[in-house]
Amino acid sequence: MPTNKNLLSIPGIKLAVAASGLKDNDQKDLMLMVLHDESIVSGTFTQNKFCAAPVIVSKNHLKITGNTKALLVNTGSANAGNGAKGIDDAETTCKFLALELNVDPNKVLPFSTGVIMSPLPVDKIKKSIPNLIKDLKDNNWLDASEAIMTTDTIPKAVSKAVLIEGQQVNITGMSKGAGMIHPNMATMLAFIGMDVNISLDMLQKINKEIVNLTFNCISVDGDSSTNDSFMLISSNQAKHSQIVQVDNNYKILKAAIFDVALELAHSIIRDGEGATKFITIKVENGNDIDECKRIGMSIAKSPLVKTAFFASDPNLGRILSAIGNTNIKELNVSSIDIYINDLLFASGGSVAKNYDESKIQKEMKKSEINIRVNLNKGKHMATVWTTDLSYEYVKINAEYRT
Amino acid sequence: MPTNKNLLSIPGIKLAVAASGLKDNDQKDLMLMVLHDESIVSGTFTQNKFCAAPVIVSKNHLKITGNTKALLVNTGSANAGNGAKGIDDAETTCKFLALELNVDPNKVLPFSTGVIMSPLPVDKIKKSIPNLIKDLKDNNWLDASEAIMTTDTIPKAVSKAVLIEGQQVNITGMSKGAGMIHPNMATMLAFIGMDVNISLDMLQKINKEIVNLTFNCISVDGDSSTNDSFMLISSNQAKHSQIVQVDNNYKILKAAIFDVALELAHSIIRDGEGATKFITIKVENGNDIDECKRIGMSIAKSPLVKTAFFASDPNLGRILSAIGNTNIKELNVSSIDIYINDLLFASGGSVAKNYDESKIQKEMKKSEINIRVNLNKGKHMATVWTTDLSYEYVKINAEYRT
Repeated sequence: MPTNKNLLSIPGIKLAVAASGLKDNDQKDLMLMVLHDESIVSGTFTQNKFCAAPVIVSKNHLKITGNTKALLVNTGSANAGNGAKGIDDAETTCKFLALELNVDPNKVLPFSTGVIMSPLPVDKIKKSIPNLIKDLKDNNWLDASEAIMTTDTIPKAVSKAVLIEGQQVNITGMSKGAGMIHPNMATMLAFIGMDVNISLDMLQKINKEIVNLTFNCISVDGDSSTNDSFMLISSNQAKHSQIVQVDNNYKILKAAIFDVALELAHSIIRDGEGATKFITIKVENGNDIDECKRIGMSIAKSPLVKTAFFASDPNLGRILSAIGNTNIKELNVSSIDIYINDLLFASGGSVAKNYDESKIQKEMKKSEINIRVNLNKGKHMATVWTTDLSYEYVKINAEYRT
Repeated sequence: MPTNKNLLSIPGIKLAVAASGLKDNDQKDLMLMVLHDESIVSGTFTQNKFCAAPVIVSKNHLKITGNTKALLVNTGSANAGNGAKGIDDAETTCKFLALELNVDPNKVLPFSTGVIMSPLPVDKIKKSIPNLIKDLKDNNWLDASEAIMTTDTIPKAVSKAVLIEGQQVNITGMSKGAGMIHPNMATMLAFIGMDVNISLDMLQKINKEIVNLTFNCISVDGDSSTNDSFMLISSNQAKHSQIVQVDNNYKILKAAIFDVALELAHSIIRDGEGATKFITIKVENGNDIDECKRIGMSIAKSPLVKTAFFASDPNLGRILSAIGNTNIKELNVSSIDIYINDLLFASGGSVAKNYDESKIQKEMKKSEINIRVNLNKGKHMATVWTTDLSYEYVKINAEYRT
C-alpha cells in the first residue's frame, strides 16, 4: 500500500483533491494537477472507436501544445457516449480552469472515469475549481491516487528515484482501474510525473515503448474502455543536461519509468474486480513478440481458464483450447510445452509423462501463479498478466450503478 | 421440451444409447447412430488449432468416404489434448465398431465431448458396443439427445417435415452444448438426420450456408471448443428425384434444415450456462454481413454488457463501448442508433432525446431481449444470439469437474 512517506514529491508538480458530490458519501472525486510552465506531457489513449469526450479533447489539446499547464480528473461520469454535448462540457471545464489559472485553455487536459452515457456534472466541477487551486500541494500524491478511484479497492501509487549525471530525478506515478481492463487500453488512467529534463519527442518515445510492455499486457475481463489514458508528465526541473537522444541517460530513465509503470499495471491486476489470484503468463520461443502476446492474451481472456483458476481446478486442457483459438497459422500444437509454476503438465501438445494432478492442484491453490508456454519454434517471448474470474466479478459489475 | 411424440423417425437411421460408466450415477453417456448403406454425411468442424482426436479422425474418414455407416458419440472425455494416443484410441473404437458392423473402419465417425486432456475410456466403450448394436431403434431420438448432454440441463431435439415433389421428407436434429459456446464453433455437437434424396456436394453446400447463419452466430462465453461438429446426415431413402443443383427443391429443403438448425442453436443459448436471459442482437444497415456480425459478436462477448443484462441495469454505455472495440475502420460512431425492445436509447452515438431509463429498465427485466443496432450506412445485416452472465456461470465452470 502506498503511503505519504514512500511517495516522492516532484519539483514542479502540485496536486489537489476535492469531494465535489460526483460520488456518494462525500468521497474524493476530483483531482487537479498543476505543472511548472516548462513542463511537457505525452499521452497514449484508448483505441476504442467510442472514445470519450475528454479523450478527444485531451488528444486535441496535446496536438496544439505539448506544453501543458494542468490536468483535471473527475470520477463518477466517464463523459463518454454523450455526443457533441460531452465535448462541449469537457471544453467548458477546461476553459473555466484555464481562466482561473490565467492560461490558454489548450494547456488544460481533462480526464474522466465512471459511468458511460452519464452527463458530466459541469456545475459541481466548476464550483470546486477555486478551492482546488488554493489547496495545491507538492506532497499530495496519495490523496490524488485516492481521488481517481472508481471500483478500485486500494489506491495505486509508486515512486522511484534515479541518478542522472549525479542529479536525483524523482518519478511518481498513480493509476486507477480494476475492471474493463484489457490492452489498447482499459478503464485505466495512469499519470506518471517526473522532473527529468527531457525533450518531448524522447518522452513520447518512452511512452510508446513502455505502454506496450506494461499496461497493454494486462487483462481483467477483455473489455477495452472508452477513457483509457497513460500520461507521462515531466516538469523538466532537474539540472542534468537535457535528454534529446537514445543514450545512456535515456536508458536509465526508461528503465526507471518502466519499473514504475509495471508496478502500477500489476497493482491494477492485483486489485482486479473479484480477483483472488495474480496470474503471470509467459509465452516463449515464438516467431515474434506479437504471436507470443496473442497466445498469452487468448489464455488471459478465456472465461473457462479463469474460472478453473478461481476453483484451483487443474482443468488445464482449457489452456490448450485457448491457445488453439488464437488463429495463428503456423501454430504446431504438437510441439508446445506448458508449465504451471515450473511443473510441466503438457508436453508435445498432450499430457506430460510424469503429470501429477495433485501436485499441480497444490500450485493452483497459491495466490500467485505462473503459466509458461514454450512454443519451441522461435526466439521471441512476451509476458501478460491477468486474474481469475470469480462470483465477485459478476456481482461488482451487475451492481456497479446501484 | 422435446418428447418422443414430437420427434419424427427418419427412414434409414437407427439410434441406440448406453450407460457405460463414462458419467457418474449410471447416466446415459454413449450414443450410436447407424445409417442405411446409401447414406451420405457432411460435416463442419471446430477451427480450434487444438482440435480433438475425434475431430481429426472424423474429418479424415469423411475425406476417404462421405458414405458413412455409423456415428459414435461419447461424453465424459473430450479426447482432446491427448496427442497420438488420443488418435489411436479414437481409431480403435472405430475399428471395433466397424468389425461388429462388418464395414470399412473409415465408414465410422467418432465424436467426443467432456473434459479436455482426459483419456478416452476405450475399454468401457468397446464393452458397450455389442449391446448398442442390439438396441438400435428408429424412434430413439429423445434418448439419443439425452445421451450426448454434458452441462446441458435439458435435451435439445426438434423435428420438421416438408413435402418435396409430393413426398414427405423428415428432418430430425439434436444438439448439445451449454458453455464454451462461440462461433467456429463451440463445445457443440449437432446431428441433423433426414431421409432426403440429395447429392453429397449439395448437402455440403447446405451445411456451409446454414452453419454460418445459426451455430456460428451464437455465443455464451466467447470460448471456442476443441470438439465442435455440425453434421448433416441423409439416408437418401425418400422417393423424390435427387437434388443435384440449387433449384426449388433445394430451397425448400434448405429452409427446413435452417429452421431445425436455428431452433437447436437457440435452445443451446436458452440452456446457456447460468443464463437467465435470451438476448437477440440485430445489427442492420452495415456495409457487409461480416461487419454487422463482428459488431454483434463484440456486444455478445462483452462481460460488462452481459453482467448489466443479468442485473437488468440500463448501463447501456457498455454497448457503445463494445461497438467501439470492434476495430472496424470505417465506423462512424456518431451515426449509430441503438434500440432495446424497440425503445430508442442511443441516437447519433449518444443518449436519445426522449430516453426514459425507467422504461428501458422495465424492458431489461424481461427474459427475452432484443438489441437492435442501426449503423445507418449500408444495406446489410446480421443477427447473433447470446445470454447474460450470472453468478451461476462462474459456479458451473469453477465446479465442472468436481
